Amino acid sequence: MNAEIIAVGSEMLTPYRQDTNSLYLTEQFNRLGVTVAFKTIAGDRLPQLTDAVRHAFSRVDIVAITGGLGPTEDDLTREAAAAALGVPLKRDPDIIAQLYARAAARRWKLTRNNEKQADVIEGATILPNANGSAPGQWLDTVVGVHRKLAMLLPGPPHEMKAMFEAQCLPRLQEILPKRHMAARVLKAAMIGESAADARIAPIYTKFADVETTILAHLGDIELRLQCTNKIPELAQARVDDLAGKIEEELEDFIYSSQGETLEQIILYYLEMRGATLAVAESCTGGMVAERLTSVSGSSRSFVGGAVVYSNRLKTELAGVDPALIAKHGAVSGEVAEALAEGIRERCGATLGLGVTGIAGPGGGSEEKPVGLVFLAVSDADGTEVLEKHFSGDRAGIRFYASQQALDMVRRRLM
Amino acid sequence: MNAEIIAVGSEMLTPYRQDTNSLYLTEQFNRLGVTVAFKTIAGDRLPQLTDAVRHAFSRVDIVAITGGLGPTEDDLTREAAAAALGVPLKRDPDIIAQLYARAAARRWKLTRNNEKQADVIEGATILPNANGSAPGQWLDTVVGVHRKLAMLLPGPPHEMKAMFEAQCLPRLQEILPKRHMAARVLKAAMIGESAADARIAPIYTKFADVETTILAHLGDIELRLQCTNKIPELAQARVDDLAGKIEEELEDFIYSSQGETLEQIILYYLEMRGATLAVAESCTGGMVAERLTSVSGSSRSFVGGAVVYSNRLKTELAGVDPALIAKHGAVSGEVAEALAEGIRERCGATLGLGVTGIAGPGGGSEEKPVGLVFLAVSDADGTEVLEKHFSGDRAGIRFYASQQALDMVRRRLM
Repeated sequence: MNAEIIAVGSEMLTPYRQDTNSLYLTEQFNRLGVTVAFKTIAGDRLPQLTDAVRHAFSRVDIVAITGGLGPTEDDLTREAAAAALGVPLKRDPDIIAQLYARAAARRWKLTRNNEKQADVIEGATILPNANGSAPGQWLDTVVGVHRKLAMLLPGPPHEMKAMFEAQCLPRLQEILPKRHMAARVLKAAMIGESAADARIAPIYTKFADVETTILAHLGDIELRLQCTNKIPELAQARVDDLAGKIEEELEDFIYSSQGETLEQIILYYLEMRGATLAVAESCTGGMVAERLTSVSGSSRSFVGGAVVYSNRLKTELAGVDPALIAKHGAVSGEVAEALAEGIRERCGATLGLGVTGIAGPGGGSEEKPVGLVFLAVSDADGTEVLEKHFSGDRAGIRFYASQQALDMVRRRLM
Repeated sequence: MNAEIIAVGSEMLTPYRQDTNSLYLTEQFNRLGVTVAFKTIAGDRLPQLTDAVRHAFSRVDIVAITGGLGPTEDDLTREAAAAALGVPLKRDPDIIAQLYARAAARRWKLTRNNEKQADVIEGATILPNANGSAPGQWLDTVVGVHRKLAMLLPGPPHEMKAMFEAQCLPRLQEILPKRHMAARVLKAAMIGESAADARIAPIYTKFADVETTILAHLGDIELRLQCTNKIPELAQARVDDLAGKIEEELEDFIYSSQGETLEQIILYYLEMRGATLAVAESCTGGMVAERLTSVSGSSRSFVGGAVVYSNRLKTELAGVDPALIAKHGAVSGEVAEALAEGIRERCGATLGLGVTGIAGPGGGSEEKPVGLVFLAVSDADGTEVLEKHFSGDRAGIRFYASQQALDMVRRRLM
């Protein structure tokens, strides 16, 4: 079975907005064993929208349409779907009554045009909207000689998702052959996509029934493993088997085997060891602290630190000897080391982290080019210093530096 | 004239990846006065891709196809476009020679399948690719009785953009009626979309020839004004006239009238006044510092500061009296004030900023609920304290707090 997702709304045909509902629906369809063959984005114009819906019925088994179910003149999904199928719309008095009841409960005054939300395609089942006024519609029909399923869903993501889960998912599960999908997400830091793939491709290609997707971000890769099988335990066993073999191959590059973020893993390790962390950041400008504190509950192990952008602050807040800066320069292994040790002491933390570098685009020299970053992690056993050369623009270099810094802390805690 | 953009690639039919090329192409088309009527995403399968291209030719004037031009078996855009038009592909010996020359210069060994990149649709013009191996193709043809334009562009954004600008834009400008588009971007902070719209809708609706788009982010709105006219000066005058009237209405909510970011504006004001800024952040955890230091050259005016997540650090790094914390609590106007004053003094900065609050989801109480944030800005003239109640999740509350903090600094500098 295959599907087409049609996102309706002229705003998604501007340079500023994108359809994101289709990502969620694709994930849901894939879990059910349905492939998404096309995505279409159409504007709020009846002839074009009707053409899009009609053509979708001609080429796929399942058509999911999001948006265009509201009360305004621009909301034309009902009309377009009915026209595409060549059947009439009927105004449902029960829905009208519900619309007025809902408005009355909220002390809203309903205008007449709201009643168009009660237009139902002949043969369709009404899907209640738990989070909004526009009901959805479900169609199980025949076009030519082929059975076709269609669903009209609201555009706002929280309404769409709730309606799909409550109304469409059970219906699809009933109709589609039973399947079970097991999934695992492994994550690795500071290893390139091609380097990782070269090491693990010989492994995952032997698991033909497990779909392996590699998603690469800056300094971070995500390995998504999926297996579909009629027997849930078998699907899970295959995914776990492959995950285990990949973890063995990539060893300590893998920081997460259940989808956790690098920040979550560090905070988990810190808490497990009863340890605390303080950071002194120059070129990352607070990014390491920001990433860690984005996790709820991070205050249990992350105490804070300093953004030491100026040399004066390196001394004032992290206790770096001005003579050291004068001798080696602010961007040096010695200063990174002093930052890590200084901030650890000043904050009374178990671990201290220091980062200093040149994020660019200005400020580089032949001796110390843009992308040069020194990182240090300090604890009671001593201090480790790392020199790295990152490439990319300012945002990329800063992110790489923050990722490397977090990964250093993780490895120190392991 | 209208257009359809077809993005080719099965990876864009997974839950993990989205087509972004179409945003750029939409912007380019709109500038030329071309409306994008449809976007289609199709996978790497010949029948489906051919169907998508054929159907696009049936419903729009201009078809832009991105992706599927590489050397692999999955690269089927050339075949699909030729099949859709019912014309043959011809292998071009010059392109083959160029492919081998390019590979030789890079000491790559070319496999035979690379030669398929030399397949040219009958009647098409070859578009050189300055940044990759796969050339594009340009078609100016007739389907039925209608003139149709089509372009086959590579998928990697930097290749696609360079080829569009160098090869397609001049051809489209030659063919399409002359138009000039003037644009302005105004930005406003900490005013809601509906509040802003209620104030400015009576103004912009009087400018029927200027398209006004409001894009709302967290605590930030962007007003995009566009006017198309044959006479460039007239288009610019209309946009500037409307921009001026909107600025007058929204007054000091507007922080930028040429598209600059809030961070850039603050750094610009600081530099203009020869002033420096230091921050002490609790709930924002470094986000304010990170946002400011994301701007190149920020070190000229932003000295840094402290992430004072724990109470100990509020005292140690920002000099807050522990008795004050004990008396009023870490989340209080008094502590925000002390943070701003303490960090300003400690860092020897002209301005000090303090932020303390409850980002949640845990840590709230009846007296001090999640979303409560105190902010303070201090300079030689004194300290201003603000109490805010933000709603949303942890990420939202933290972003609102950082946005409010930056806006406070901006207003202090104005």
